[in-house]
Amino acid sequence: MLTGMQIAVIGGDARQLEIIRKLTELDAKISLIGFEQLDHAFTGAVKEKLEEVDFTNIDSIILPVTGANLEGQVETIFSNEKVILSEDILFKTPEHCIIYSGISNPYLNHIVKQSKRTLVQLFSRDDVAIYNSIPTVEGTIMMAIQHTDFTIHGSNITVLGLGRCGMSTARAFHALGAKVKVGARKSEHLARITEMGVTPFHLDDIEKAVAGTDILINTIPHLIVSAAVIAKLPSHTLIIDIASKPGGTDFRYAEKRGIKALLAPSLPGIVAPKTAGQILANVLSQLLQESYKNRKETEK
Amino acid sequence: MLTGMQIAVIGGDARQLEIIRKLTELDAKISLIGFEQLDHAFTGAVKEKLEEVDFTNIDSIILPVTGANLEGQVETIFSNEKVILSEDILFKTPEHCIIYSGISNPYLNHIVKQSKRTLVQLFSRDDVAIYNSIPTVEGTIMMAIQHTDFTIHGSNITVLGLGRCGMSTARAFHALGAKVKVGARKSEHLARITEMGVTPFHLDDIEKAVAGTDILINTIPHLIVSAAVIAKLPSHTLIIDIASKPGGTDFRYAEKRGIKALLAPSLPGIVAPKTAGQILANVLSQLLQESYKNRKETEK
Amino acid sequence: MLTGMQIAVIGGDARQLEIIRKLTELDAKISLIGFEQLDHAFTGAVKEKLEEVDFTNIDSIILPVTGANLEGQVETIFSNEKVILSEDILFKTPEHCIIYSGISNPYLNHIVKQSKRTLVQLFSRDDVAIYNSIPTVEGTIMMAIQHTDFTIHGSNITVLGLGRCGMSTARAFHALGAKVKVGARKSEHLARITEMGVTPFHLDDIEKAVAGTDILINTIPHLIVSAAVIAKLPSHTLIIDIASKPGGTDFRYAEKRGIKALLAPSLPGIVAPKTAGQILANVLSQLLQESYKNRKETEK
Amino acid sequence: MLTGMQIAVIGGDARQLEIIRKLTELDAKISLIGFEQLDHAFTGAVKEKLEEVDFTNIDSIILPVTGANLEGQVETIFSNEKVILSEDILFKTPEHCIIYSGISNPYLNHIVKQSKRTLVQLFSRDDVAIYNSIPTVEGTIMMAIQHTDFTIHGSNITVLGLGRCGMSTARAFHALGAKVKVGARKSEHLARITEMGVTPFHLDDIEKAVAGTDILINTIPHLIVSAAVIAKLPSHTLIIDIASKPGGTDFRYAEKRGIKALLAPSLPGIVAPKTAGQILANVLSQLLQESYKNRKETEK
Repeated sequence: MLTGMQIAVIGGDARQLEIIRKLTELDAKISLIGFEQLDHAFTGAVKEKLEEVDFTNIDSIILPVTGANLEGQVETIFSNEKVILSEDILFKTPEHCIIYSGISNPYLNHIVKQSKRTLVQLFSRDDVAIYNSIPTVEGTIMMAIQHTDFTIHGSNITVLGLGRCGMSTARAFHALGAKVKVGARKSEHLARITEMGVTPFHLDDIEKAVAGTDILINTIPHLIVSAAVIAKLPSHTLIIDIASKPGGTDFRYAEKRGIKALLAPSLPGIVAPKTAGQILANVLSQLLQESYKNRKETEK
Repeated sequence: MLTGMQIAVIGGDARQLEIIRKLTELDAKISLIGFEQLDHAFTGAVKEKLEEVDFTNIDSIILPVTGANLEGQVETIFSNEKVILSEDILFKTPEHCIIYSGISNPYLNHIVKQSKRTLVQLFSRDDVAIYNSIPTVEGTIMMAIQHTDFTIHGSNITVLGLGRCGMSTARAFHALGAKVKVGARKSEHLARITEMGVTPFHLDDIEKAVAGTDILINTIPHLIVSAAVIAKLPSHTLIIDIASKPGGTDFRYAEKRGIKALLAPSLPGIVAPKTAGQILANVLSQLLQESYKNRKETEK
Repeated sequence: MLTGMQIAVIGGDARQLEIIRKLTELDAKISLIGFEQLDHAFTGAVKEKLEEVDFTNIDSIILPVTGANLEGQVETIFSNEKVILSEDILFKTPEHCIIYSGISNPYLNHIVKQSKRTLVQLFSRDDVAIYNSIPTVEGTIMMAIQHTDFTIHGSNITVLGLGRCGMSTARAFHALGAKVKVGARKSEHLARITEMGVTPFHLDDIEKAVAGTDILINTIPHLIVSAAVIAKLPSHTLIIDIASKPGGTDFRYAEKRGIKALLAPSLPGIVAPKTAGQILANVLSQLLQESYKNRKETEK
Repeated sequence: MLTGMQIAVIGGDARQLEIIRKLTELDAKISLIGFEQLDHAFTGAVKEKLEEVDFTNIDSIILPVTGANLEGQVETIFSNEKVILSEDILFKTPEHCIIYSGISNPYLNHIVKQSKRTLVQLFSRDDVAIYNSIPTVEGTIMMAIQHTDFTIHGSNITVLGLGRCGMSTARAFHALGAKVKVGARKSEHLARITEMGVTPFHLDDIEKAVAGTDILINTIPHLIVSAAVIAKLPSHTLIIDIASKPGGTDFRYAEKRGIKALLAPSLPGIVAPKTAGQILANVLSQLLQESYKNRKETEK
């Protein structure tokens, strides 16, 4: 339980609602900033304006997955007001105050460093990335169905990378009856690919391996689907790049060769905002409970 | 091989192209009626107008999956001209001429009966229905992803029926990590559902079984998702009805209760026209080869 | 519930205990014949000698899965006494009395016919056969592991038949990472094999299809793994024949060619007697409840 | 290719034959020590006695998976002679000579250190451990079938650990239709378990989680299945411990409580020696080729 904890939830979209629901269930007291237009009421959560909040009492600040922009503005889907998270605000918080966001940027890094507070980037965590791979894969399946005129079942699918998303992608497409190949470099990844019942290849051999691919799914966040690779693809191949922006595909060359290549947006918040919110809510509530427990023990 | 066979392909959409491709590969001679606007040329296939064709030589007529409408008009996506399949045309064909379509209707039944020809409805065949269940399931997955805010993985999915589509649906959603229940009546179906690793229930108990369902997928072509069943569903449930029109759902009551219920259109031609065409092409080419062989043997 | 029903359980092995447990739970009154050495006591079940039982009150007789031998003797694992089921006994029972066994033989058929009673052969039922396919498949997996020096994962496995056992076998070996081919004749079976994600072939092409097979599993109960087929197998192939006796393999030729061929015994009672008993107990209790309900309704 | 490379294969069992086959295919020259009784001949491999070998020319020494015993004796299944690998032998080899074994021990470590040679323990490698998890899992399945009277399908199976073996175990038992729970500590492991479609629990909660377990499979190589855990198991539970010796189970307490607990031997060499040999052969040939290439490049 989080009884007695004071949390400021600043901005965000539908995913934040799952977080608020979970934290109020755990009996935290919550200040909602940037939620004027939210219809739903949560017991224990109070809508406030940024300037009304007494940050000297705030134990944690929860930002949207996007954090803040380079001017410090926080995205607020449920409000028309501009909300800026400033260095001053962080200075007001108690020393133990932890800030949570999905990702960070130089602005956020800077104000956190200046104010000597802790920032937790949830999307850098392995557990969050693996949980998020589930809606990401479902979004990828949806794109594969929408953008081809053949079934996933029976088609040749090449997945690049066996990381947090690659493993989930390989498993799901295999389960749907596709003939799946996965490219990796680490010998233990090649072993795991084999054990999963799909076909491994070393990324050094990618140009040879992609021949005959119907759908190429990239999860590696640097240029791997190069012009040389694209040149080896059949013209009907669909490339879906789900690596973080800007992906790992030479999109310009793909277009030149007339090969459809899609850079997937961040899929969890789009295809399954409720699940995506629950993922964050679960991990956050666990982290908050741990930090709360640690602080109490330290205070003794 | 179909060397020496004369086939008239009358109308149709992209699926017909796969059929034409396959039959020309097998060396059949093909008259294409209603394809003026088709860019692609197939060796062995000649575009003709209906009145130009000498039907006394035609061994088989291939209609679109929709057959003809009640006035005898055949759907022609690649032509602006109106093409009518009349009784007269069938009378001109040799006695052994077989007509193939996806489905039939009273008009088509009538002219076939009058002319004493044979009509094969491909969509009534078990093999075609099972092959088509693959793109149907992928279309259902796409709809499930698009119309919910949660992932298929981890959600409660109830499938009604373990027929040709039901089994494929159950397998695919189970493979994607959903908790799947399947309702059936036959004791051997309940046994098979168990063996598949999903949870069986008897359709007599449907009202009890649907409690907690996140997505309800119906494959049974008569009213089964009745008002009494819908009344037991959580308000967030999505109903996808993939049974043949008009489905098995009380859509009016679902709307009244604010539950989203979708009658899926014929999905194979929409989500995977190329695969759907290949399915028909494969089955057709096999049927044509068999009938050709039988006729030759009879003639000896 | 079976309150008021009188059932005689005559002989059998560990599987019968699950039946007795289930039926006593449903409040039936049970006479146990041939269970003197059974330690366990079940409330509502009484050990009796055959001659002590008043068969005029018996609503159902439950025999072991083997029924009786050609002299009428019933297998009794838990007794040293010889128990003979005679025509006379059946004549004493009320007209509505139903006899249940796994399989039958001329003796059993004869006395049932003479006495005008009904015999239900549980093993002929599709549901029982499908439920039993589960332990059968696990037994087959065990044999495959024991009798080869390679893993199932990654090996080439050919399954003959997509019936009640064939489908379960194909699914399980595919799930363990084998490359599975399934041979069948019916076009809808070939379609279903494709949908399951394994490779179909027509049994007409079996001689070509078996090339390269590491393990050949037959489920077809007539000679299909003929000398001509065996001649095409690699010498290291293991044949496991799980079709009912005498199987569908030319065992003599296999031995001559030095190919290991095993006729699997009835596996459920061997590898999982408890599960095998529960399968029978579940189906029996359902059948008994139905017949009891029907009889009561008739009596009104 | 390994043309020009001189390799000494000293002792070992059937697995070594796959290694010899593979290396001779790659054109290495091989001295076979401890293979007098081997019938099969390999082109490029010569049977020699230990004292006949000119170790100054040997680029690599391949020991059995067991390495050597504490007196330096190497296991030789295909020979009755005692073969001792001494420090002296290693001193004679060129500096670049690499010794390969499955595992090591103080004796082997000592002579390698003294002679300043390199020892590669193949079983410590992640890739080998993952490949070996495949036959290990099949052996575990075999044990589970042999030592229970119920089917894996439908039973409650708890796996401890999501390491190299744990993941493979969880996947396979889930695929066979069991209800699988996996216990782990790392948050990313709990996430991956969820994504795999099985049920995660934190090992801190193991005592609560094991209630109702039919088969408990341990992969964690320290005492985790403690008396406190065993006390919570149903009396029919089967414990299979596949962690390296001495396993992680309090076997003494299990016996006291009458719970069957099996410490699995090293399964790959037992259930699938050919596959186990191929795994080693593949990894070895890759390592040898890399070291050979590196050495040649250094020499330039």
